[in-house]
Amino acid sequence: MTKHRCLSQCLLWILFPPSFVYTLSTNHPNVVIFYADDLGYGDIEPYGHPTSSTPNLRRLAADGLVLTQFYSAAAVCSPSRAALLTGRYQMRSGIYPGIINVKRPGGLPLNEVTIAEMLKPEGYKSAAIGKWHLGLGNNSMYLPPSHGFDVSLGLPASPAQCRCSICFYPNVTCHSAPCHSDEYTPCALFNGTKIVEQPVDLLTLDEKYVAEGRHFIRENVKSETPFFLYYASHHTHQPQYAGKETSGTSLRGRFGDSLAALDWEVGQIYQELEENGILDDTFFVFSSDNGPSLSLNTFGGNAGPMKCGKGTTYEGGMRVPAIIHWPGRITPGRSFEFSSTLDILPTIASITKAKLPAVTLDGYDMSPFLFDGMHSVRESFFYYPPNVNTEYKSYAVRYKQYKAVFYTQGSRLSNRMNKDVDCRGSTQRTYHNPPMMFDLEQDPSENYNLSTKHSPEKDIVEMIIQMRADFDARMVFAQSETRKPKDDSLMPCCNRGCIPFPSCCHCIGNTSWKTPTLLDSDEKGF
Amino acid sequence: MTKHRCLSQCLLWILFPPSFVYTLSTNHPNVVIFYADDLGYGDIEPYGHPTSSTPNLRRLAADGLVLTQFYSAAAVCSPSRAALLTGRYQMRSGIYPGIINVKRPGGLPLNEVTIAEMLKPEGYKSAAIGKWHLGLGNNSMYLPPSHGFDVSLGLPASPAQCRCSICFYPNVTCHSAPCHSDEYTPCALFNGTKIVEQPVDLLTLDEKYVAEGRHFIRENVKSETPFFLYYASHHTHQPQYAGKETSGTSLRGRFGDSLAALDWEVGQIYQELEENGILDDTFFVFSSDNGPSLSLNTFGGNAGPMKCGKGTTYEGGMRVPAIIHWPGRITPGRSFEFSSTLDILPTIASITKAKLPAVTLDGYDMSPFLFDGMHSVRESFFYYPPNVNTEYKSYAVRYKQYKAVFYTQGSRLSNRMNKDVDCRGSTQRTYHNPPMMFDLEQDPSENYNLSTKHSPEKDIVEMIIQMRADFDARMVFAQSETRKPKDDSLMPCCNRGCIPFPSCCHCIGNTSWKTPTLLDSDEKGF
Repeated sequence: MTKHRCLSQCLLWILFPPSFVYTLSTNHPNVVIFYADDLGYGDIEPYGHPTSSTPNLRRLAADGLVLTQFYSAAAVCSPSRAALLTGRYQMRSGIYPGIINVKRPGGLPLNEVTIAEMLKPEGYKSAAIGKWHLGLGNNSMYLPPSHGFDVSLGLPASPAQCRCSICFYPNVTCHSAPCHSDEYTPCALFNGTKIVEQPVDLLTLDEKYVAEGRHFIRENVKSETPFFLYYASHHTHQPQYAGKETSGTSLRGRFGDSLAALDWEVGQIYQELEENGILDDTFFVFSSDNGPSLSLNTFGGNAGPMKCGKGTTYEGGMRVPAIIHWPGRITPGRSFEFSSTLDILPTIASITKAKLPAVTLDGYDMSPFLFDGMHSVRESFFYYPPNVNTEYKSYAVRYKQYKAVFYTQGSRLSNRMNKDVDCRGSTQRTYHNPPMMFDLEQDPSENYNLSTKHSPEKDIVEMIIQMRADFDARMVFAQSETRKPKDDSLMPCCNRGCIPFPSCCHCIGNTSWKTPTLLDSDEKGF
Repeated sequence: MTKHRCLSQCLLWILFPPSFVYTLSTNHPNVVIFYADDLGYGDIEPYGHPTSSTPNLRRLAADGLVLTQFYSAAAVCSPSRAALLTGRYQMRSGIYPGIINVKRPGGLPLNEVTIAEMLKPEGYKSAAIGKWHLGLGNNSMYLPPSHGFDVSLGLPASPAQCRCSICFYPNVTCHSAPCHSDEYTPCALFNGTKIVEQPVDLLTLDEKYVAEGRHFIRENVKSETPFFLYYASHHTHQPQYAGKETSGTSLRGRFGDSLAALDWEVGQIYQELEENGILDDTFFVFSSDNGPSLSLNTFGGNAGPMKCGKGTTYEGGMRVPAIIHWPGRITPGRSFEFSSTLDILPTIASITKAKLPAVTLDGYDMSPFLFDGMHSVRESFFYYPPNVNTEYKSYAVRYKQYKAVFYTQGSRLSNRMNKDVDCRGSTQRTYHNPPMMFDLEQDPSENYNLSTKHSPEKDIVEMIIQMRADFDARMVFAQSETRKPKDDSLMPCCNRGCIPFPSCCHCIGNTSWKTPTLLDSDEKGF
């Protein structure tokens, strides 16, 4: 540290000691979950990518806790999100197999209790911004307003499920095929259950999200209301896009520009918390829904040292970056403790004193290792594949440092040309008996199978086999919400009944909803 | 930053402002090169390994510059070290093909100018501690004293080239086969050209090295002599070993213990610099000689997102971690600037005003990007394989962000069972015409070959083809030093002439040389 930097920081402490900063009740900290899309384990600076530039995530990591053994409950979008918001494996809520298509009438069942609903009795206001992907349904019945969110602005799915054209400022067209197809209506931006822009302008979408998020924070601070902000960025899912601030700014090409946009969004939300003096009163979680979409080549992400990517139950599919930030409560650093997105809901319940939903939960309170220097309560984790069904159930089990692998299968999302043939979509489901065994603390890349006849881990294998049998036997599969029959009329349209559908769905300039303006400070180039 | 931490740091500044700290002439900063062995790109905390714990390297990285696009000049030990110390590709000094075997009479030619020799006219004292691996020769003619080092303590090669037995405190035997063979004499520890211990006790070897290194620093500070310390650790090469401080301490098993020992050594040297108030006057470089030895499974390292490992010209073989530390002169952070171990000698010449050796150099002064916020002068780098010869020459060329790959070949050092068959030892040399092309800034893992007929990079390919032809045509191969005929009598023996050779070479308790005692402060558990 230089002398000047030291003195200026201390001066700040003298002029504005923490006790004078506006504080909320310590029992009701604010909660921000910033959720990235298809961001791989190795994609950001704190996880070692050599050319990613993510200054805002770097700062979050420097002042927060970087988790290195953190798992998403699924290897694709919709089930990951269902699990995060409910603290339950996706099969319990019917968000399997695969993802939700807006043409199908299913969605996250209304009797599922989300974090937003859990926090409501404690006086929290909640907002869902960005990608939803937990169903649209008849009359937008599955959108965030039905799940406890007071404010919401976003797309029902990723822009890959709608038509778009310009993805990069000023006029670079989108690169990925679904964006150009006629299969979907033009992208519809929903405010609550109402379409406010169609097709959405991707070049200004992040600005709208950020403005809404910042406005939501400010309003709650003004009214001294604790809040939960669920900010689910579209970045870095395909089609990547980037507005004026970040287009063409990165060494990593278009993926890098999308990553820069993600980082900019994080920075904007962080800045709003900082300007309102509530960083110390906010439990901030950053994570990703699943591993990188390697099939997109340089338009996909990077799993770092992890094997394969999105769509697989290898580490590259389900181990994700996670940064937890709460200055004064969480000691900055890195943690090797083993945890999952399933643990977020119970942890939030613990720190807000909210009542846990009266259903089977799959998560554990992370407080012991986050706040008390103890070990994680979680000892096991079950890897369910995107095509999970009641016949095969879990593909692998992690118990402490050991991963026992019963089934492997490649995924078309992890590249048909992958040099590691295990990852390829053409690699069919394979049963391993005895299961393959990996020590993930010594071998995170799943290179060295320990499961030999004379392995000293034999007892552990037997124990895990039993553990899996017990857990899978008790797993209750709800009716699938993702495979209900397609119905084109469900596609979102602000101009319902127009001809020719779906391309007629246009409503640019809908004036019934106004984007909150960004603060002046945004123009200072933060 | 917490208030307390801030205040205590400022108090230190008030009590001991930098101007009162002992300083050397700014033209003659001290130089420390800390060189790890077979440490992969992804092995340490600052480069994203999920379970490595390297607190001293973390601190070095936090206060230093982490280079993400830094290359060793070779993919195996001896040539890497020759290139580092001379600033020249290894073929120029004859350190090819492969590595130096102590039974062969070759070594780094005495007319080569090392960093130590370059600094001598400027009044520097130099020490070489640890692994040498640049030849032993008749009468120890190639050891560090013949190459400008005033002080030296170390083994002629890695402990894999000698017999040993106990590798982990208190009594765990070494795991790797060469350690148990009768091919070599028991490990000989040299002080200068004299054997002071044979077989060496690996459990206390690091303590001896550290004590010697700290003593060297202290003595030079006392006499106000600028110094160059070349500390070439044996860690994390096989056979891994660890003494009392680090054995059994890591999540990564025996490799992790060896890594912890490496980190401990870094911390000890750092502490000596700190205690003598000369951190600000010391240009400290941390790096590794080549990528991880994946053939050793969990006893080998991890290349992170890089392809393959040791012995190959893929990124995993030659891109290595590098941290440059010089408080007050180098702004902490990460740098994407492209550089190499070849650049270390010219950079040291630049900052010490030493005269460059009057020979063909392959390095560039790194000062523009280290000190002046400019780009690296280096635009290209040539990847020569361990089995380089005058017929095939360079296998690949990096030009700016592009890597053009003309030849690929696996290596037995990168695992015969590697899931990526390109890495395996059984994968023979393959010629690529047109060369494969990778954008390493977008695709550091070398997954996506850009070289198609319609590639926009076609002009660049043509330019690189020409650049390679020109450079290879001008490359002068010295006579090989590594393939001179074996002579068992060259094996180091403190009891020369004894019977039965080589196992009779024993001299434990040689009292003619005394290990400097560690300072009291070492016992405080730093």
